[in-house]
Amino acid sequence: MATQTAQQRRDDAKLRFDAYLAGCPSRRLLDRIADKWVALVLKSLAAGPQRYSDLARQLAGVSQKMLTQTLRNLERDGLLTRTVTAEVPVRVDYELTPLGSSLGQLLGDLKSWAEEHMPDVDEARQRYDRRT
Amino acid sequence: MATQTAQQRRDDAKLRFDAYLAGCPSRRLLDRIADKWVALVLKSLAAGPQRYSDLARQLAGVSQKMLTQTLRNLERDGLLTRTVTAEVPVRVDYELTPLGSSLGQLLGDLKSWAEEHMPDVDEARQRYDRRT
Repeated sequence: MATQTAQQRRDDAKLRFDAYLAGCPSRRLLDRIADKWVALVLKSLAAGPQRYSDLARQLAGVSQKMLTQTLRNLERDGLLTRTVTAEVPVRVDYELTPLGSSLGQLLGDLKSWAEEHMPDVDEARQRYDRRT
Repeated sequence: MATQTAQQRRDDAKLRFDAYLAGCPSRRLLDRIADKWVALVLKSLAAGPQRYSDLARQLAGVSQKMLTQTLRNLERDGLLTRTVTAEVPVRVDYELTPLGSSLGQLLGDLKSWAEEHMPDVDEARQRYDRRT
């Protein structure tokens, strides 16, 4: 069998998976990645590798439990790598994989959309609340 | 004061809002839009206006409560319009606004990403589970 190019592989996957379907694994993956903490972690790591403590500081208000679980899921899904260096205290660095970078661009756009369109959404909410 | 262009308005908002900050309203907006049901609704409406029953069919497995709440939030945020026609039974149509279209493109890309990269993520999960 001829080796598939990355593009052929993605085209093939596009035919096999459909997130509209409840039982499709891509529905669960969409649920995993359509998440504000995933967006903020990937956007933050797009600037370069970071330590756990840097991420915790940048993602103001995130709980340790939520950040740890988010990072573990992203590592398992192949979106980032986790490197432990034996120092005192132990140093843990996170870095995007190429797969994580490709998703990070999309989610970075989503973060920017929320910031740039906040005034439009605010006005829409005021109009809605006056009407109802 | 000179009227701002849409682009100036977005640039200005980009400086005022920052979803990394816990108290910023754009953090809550990001939380609202980074959601699989929002992604599937907006992607579905990108093809044209639809009735409630069409959406319920396309988004397999969505509960009535979740779909109704998602649609109401999207209407309040100015991303879609809801039109009620007095027929028997009453007919309700949903249609994207220009604001909803702009977000729908980003979220449609996210759905496609999940489908196209499902094999990569699957392989990464298998590697991770063998290691741990």
